[in-house]
Amino acid sequence: MHILVLGGDGYLGWPTALHLSAAGHEVAVADNFARRGYDEELGVESLVPIATLEERVATWAEIGGKQLKTYVGDLCDAQFVHSMVAEFRPQAIVHYAEQRAAPYSMIDQAHAVYTQTNNVIGNLNVMYAIADIDRDIHLVKLGTMGEYGTPNIDIEEGWITIEHNGRSDRVLYPKRPGSFYHLSKVHDSHNIEFGCRIWGLRATDLNQGVVYGADTEQTKLDPRLATRFDYDGVFGTVLNRMVIQSVLGHPLTVYGNGSQTRGLINIVDTVECIRLACENPADRGEFRVFNQMTESKSIRQIAETVATEYPRWEGSTGEATIEHVENPRVEAEDHYYNVKHSALENLGLKPTLLSTTLIDHLFDVVERHRDRVDLAAIMPTVKWRETASELPQTSASALAKA
Amino acid sequence: MHILVLGGDGYLGWPTALHLSAAGHEVAVADNFARRGYDEELGVESLVPIATLEERVATWAEIGGKQLKTYVGDLCDAQFVHSMVAEFRPQAIVHYAEQRAAPYSMIDQAHAVYTQTNNVIGNLNVMYAIADIDRDIHLVKLGTMGEYGTPNIDIEEGWITIEHNGRSDRVLYPKRPGSFYHLSKVHDSHNIEFGCRIWGLRATDLNQGVVYGADTEQTKLDPRLATRFDYDGVFGTVLNRMVIQSVLGHPLTVYGNGSQTRGLINIVDTVECIRLACENPADRGEFRVFNQMTESKSIRQIAETVATEYPRWEGSTGEATIEHVENPRVEAEDHYYNVKHSALENLGLKPTLLSTTLIDHLFDVVERHRDRVDLAAIMPTVKWRETASELPQTSASALAKA
Repeated sequence: MHILVLGGDGYLGWPTALHLSAAGHEVAVADNFARRGYDEELGVESLVPIATLEERVATWAEIGGKQLKTYVGDLCDAQFVHSMVAEFRPQAIVHYAEQRAAPYSMIDQAHAVYTQTNNVIGNLNVMYAIADIDRDIHLVKLGTMGEYGTPNIDIEEGWITIEHNGRSDRVLYPKRPGSFYHLSKVHDSHNIEFGCRIWGLRATDLNQGVVYGADTEQTKLDPRLATRFDYDGVFGTVLNRMVIQSVLGHPLTVYGNGSQTRGLINIVDTVECIRLACENPADRGEFRVFNQMTESKSIRQIAETVATEYPRWEGSTGEATIEHVENPRVEAEDHYYNVKHSALENLGLKPTLLSTTLIDHLFDVVERHRDRVDLAAIMPTVKWRETASELPQTSASALAKA
Repeated sequence: MHILVLGGDGYLGWPTALHLSAAGHEVAVADNFARRGYDEELGVESLVPIATLEERVATWAEIGGKQLKTYVGDLCDAQFVHSMVAEFRPQAIVHYAEQRAAPYSMIDQAHAVYTQTNNVIGNLNVMYAIADIDRDIHLVKLGTMGEYGTPNIDIEEGWITIEHNGRSDRVLYPKRPGSFYHLSKVHDSHNIEFGCRIWGLRATDLNQGVVYGADTEQTKLDPRLATRFDYDGVFGTVLNRMVIQSVLGHPLTVYGNGSQTRGLINIVDTVECIRLACENPADRGEFRVFNQMTESKSIRQIAETVATEYPRWEGSTGEATIEHVENPRVEAEDHYYNVKHSALENLGLKPTLLSTTLIDHLFDVVERHRDRVDLAAIMPTVKWRETASELPQTSASALAKA
């Protein structure tokens, strides 16, 4: 089928485009390179060097034998979105093209407003393009488990049946997200559910857990196909960041007491989930929600896993220590967390669990690029209770100013 | 106390500013005149002529003996919002300054995007100004009963305790709104609840029913204090529109079968609710939600009330007839609707019910201005299932194009 991957130059968008192409689909990728721009702004870089989109596509044509079509533009430009969808005529649109870091959205007013505008308006424009051009197009939208917050009841997959005062209804699962970024995804979900009602759109909303891992079957075929690997305090996510800290001999930083629990998913499962969602579309008018995660772990458990594995790795130079730092976020640390996530497994996903993942490989990746690490970028700098955060003065940003 | 009324030039903002001023508060009003601009765009006008904000304020200084401070600017301009709040230093901010018509938001992509951007970003800027300047400022935010949709269970006041799989939690009431406008208010509510958690904001979110009525104790003191009275298919709300239709001998237009039920509130209760909310602020960190309505009526019941009262009015020239037209919206017509709305009554509100309201007075208001009515503007022109609606060619807009 024809699949358009929005945000196809990003950490997950690029491996997804490759995975879908390898699976035999006709794939186009769209991007405005905002993610590369955030690196410039923050003075940080992907640990793993990444090729330009042009080089990536040329390499895949050479190695994979498949041509990816590319569109360069901004989803906030409605005319761009409309023209792209009208020209490529996808059966599915995979939408990764949103600002995706909670800390980035919490830097200050301008970053909060940017995140909500970029995400909500970009997504509205995609919805309008589908409604205008072909309401059969399946929208596969990336959301996050962070939308739910940490309710004291089981987390269902997007919908919940409530019994109240002797009556019953099936309603959207009530969400209580933890940043202006997470909120933007909740806004998207509400907008899309409405689009399904009024226009009969087909939509799959994926509430994804924290993704870890450096590559997939396709990205490791050639260094020019590699995807980004972030470790900085703004865009770096917990497991990847801790792997880097252990290799560098830096303590593994746990925010608060570390009891806060998160859903996790391996990058190889992410790309497979997207394939499964595309190949098994939602019905016309259906707002379908999947919790795209394979297991739950507390931050402390993740740190302990890395700390246990590191000394066993052949390149290790000693022990990894765990350090608790003040939690920059406002979040519950001790809480109930029980998430239902059977829908994707019912479609055929075979989960790759952390316990069976060769973290060794991640240590190797970091070792190979350790000279690229800027230690100053690792620590959290964005504080939820403040309205204007001081960003890190990394060597790269200091250089830029020199 | 010092109270800043955002959107203080609008249908409800202006009477609220007068009511708060008459109650002894120091009041400032802010507006960017967007509402007057929509009239220009759509080629329609308020049935009741309205003075400029400058004239209104001068008249109130003369008649009420109180000076209102004015700020002219756009809430999407963060610097304007910050400077205004820093200068006036309100104890409460009453926030009416959002695009408030569901049909307007459904005209096309540009109007949907405008509505969500204007409303969500303006509100974020207000939140940031409060968080930056003084977290004790009480945000009194106008929302709508339309945010809830029509669930099959009782509608609680913003929060609901759910029992699920043997566990329990108090969560935000799940909402399923019916337009991109209503969605923008749901987005606001989620953003504000988060602001209460991270910054300890005080917030009262008012889910207001459909407001009817032409004036309050203060607006009727002088024609230059009058507030707007809309009857057009985009901004006109149901009861006011039907009163106009009856006086003009036009059938009362009911969308669909008319079983759809809505919460209602008289304009004199609206302004009193705002006073009560301001004088009894939410606690620090509290996200408090009130359902600001006094009774529920189906559209058919409202039409029947007007049709019954019209022939009894001394100016009547015959019967009023009811005409069912195709429902331009996507909404349930036959549904359960039971709304809890005791919080404001517990604070002291004495409801003014439709049955005890002198609709006679509304007929008089219309009769006085009947020569200003453009019949072409009354019918619904915006269709929910379409992505680009034809707006009415009213005489005013035709004129503008001539």
